[in-house]
Amino acid sequence: MERHFDQEFSKLKDKILEMGNHVQAAVDLAIRGLTERNTDHFAQVHEIEKNINLAHLDVDKFCIRLFARQSPLGADLRLVFSVVKINADLERMGDQAVNIAYNGKDYLTRPPIKELVDLPKMGEEVKTMVRDALAAFFTLDVEQAKKVLMNDDVVDELKNKIFNELSSMMKANPAVVDGALDLILIARNLERLGDHATNIAEAAIFDANGEDVRHGKDKT
Amino acid sequence: MERHFDQEFSKLKDKILEMGNHVQAAVDLAIRGLTERNTDHFAQVHEIEKNINLAHLDVDKFCIRLFARQSPLGADLRLVFSVVKINADLERMGDQAVNIAYNGKDYLTRPPIKELVDLPKMGEEVKTMVRDALAAFFTLDVEQAKKVLMNDDVVDELKNKIFNELSSMMKANPAVVDGALDLILIARNLERLGDHATNIAEAAIFDANGEDVRHGKDKT
Repeated sequence: MERHFDQEFSKLKDKILEMGNHVQAAVDLAIRGLTERNTDHFAQVHEIEKNINLAHLDVDKFCIRLFARQSPLGADLRLVFSVVKINADLERMGDQAVNIAYNGKDYLTRPPIKELVDLPKMGEEVKTMVRDALAAFFTLDVEQAKKVLMNDDVVDELKNKIFNELSSMMKANPAVVDGALDLILIARNLERLGDHATNIAEAAIFDANGEDVRHGKDKT
Repeated sequence: MERHFDQEFSKLKDKILEMGNHVQAAVDLAIRGLTERNTDHFAQVHEIEKNINLAHLDVDKFCIRLFARQSPLGADLRLVFSVVKINADLERMGDQAVNIAYNGKDYLTRPPIKELVDLPKMGEEVKTMVRDALAAFFTLDVEQAKKVLMNDDVVDELKNKIFNELSSMMKANPAVVDGALDLILIARNLERLGDHATNIAEAAIFDANGEDVRHGKDKT
């Protein structure tokens, strides 16, 4: 017979995975708003973020109730504890997607810049990171979680490359300053999204083997 | 007789307040590194952040133990739950201070820009927000918490002003592009620090009266 805790945790898992899907959809639409130059996509990001926020409150309440009614211990307690943090990460990711939508809307009012540099590529990496980090957490798959940490290095490198390219463009042509700044802020938001996915992957490793890797690697 | 929970929560409070002091010191040093053009201050920020990270792990362990041994309920449960989240906020604030130190170090290698615009003022506001948000949380002072939310609007306005000033400078003089970009990223980090302090203030309001204000105001 399945333990009551397992039944409840399974519901929590579904809620978190749905939030993860929302985050991926929000990132996807935010970037497509840029590539397709379509502000409707940005409006949709705001709608999705509202759902993420509602889910965030719902998950918090669910976890508080679970603590109160089940008083989980040991590995169960650690899992719920991690979900509380993952929930916060996912909520912040919604904020980041909204930031991209804001900056993206500004960007579309300016002359376009060379093929959006590597932003779409960065967006794809981040979406993969979110999906894989949550999968790794719920299967406690350390190898998959470690892959997410490596993907974060790729995201950081892309961000550095984008920064360098855009600052060169700004120096060469003052007319692109505003647009390039928008893209720099978008790259920064994508980097932050990657950091949040990294937090989730670190929670997966923590819960899989009690190894706390959270401060082994300095985040920048 | 004081309840055992109260004794334990009092220890937790001291740990969190000490983390808050570390965060304030880190922000202070990061900004002084800029104003005094002294890279030693940046090095100290990294040292402080290591302490914040250790405290973060310590608080997490303490909370897990508290959940396991005391199975808090009702208001007690909500308080510990909030501390788990505040702990995560403070840890991220350490990351943000380190980001400022990195960008600040880059900035000092470039020709200085007009009086660092309003960055020092923004830094002061943020330090005040951290102090007041934690005080509001531990006294459940809703008025003080609401003041922090208003301070966050001031921080956001300062950031917008700084962005506008710096982008104008970049357009007028391509030689300042790199330095101005450093300062823009620093302003962005300060804004994020303010957002984390806002999260803490919102937790204060939540725990004071069960009113969840977290998604009443969209963060940008």
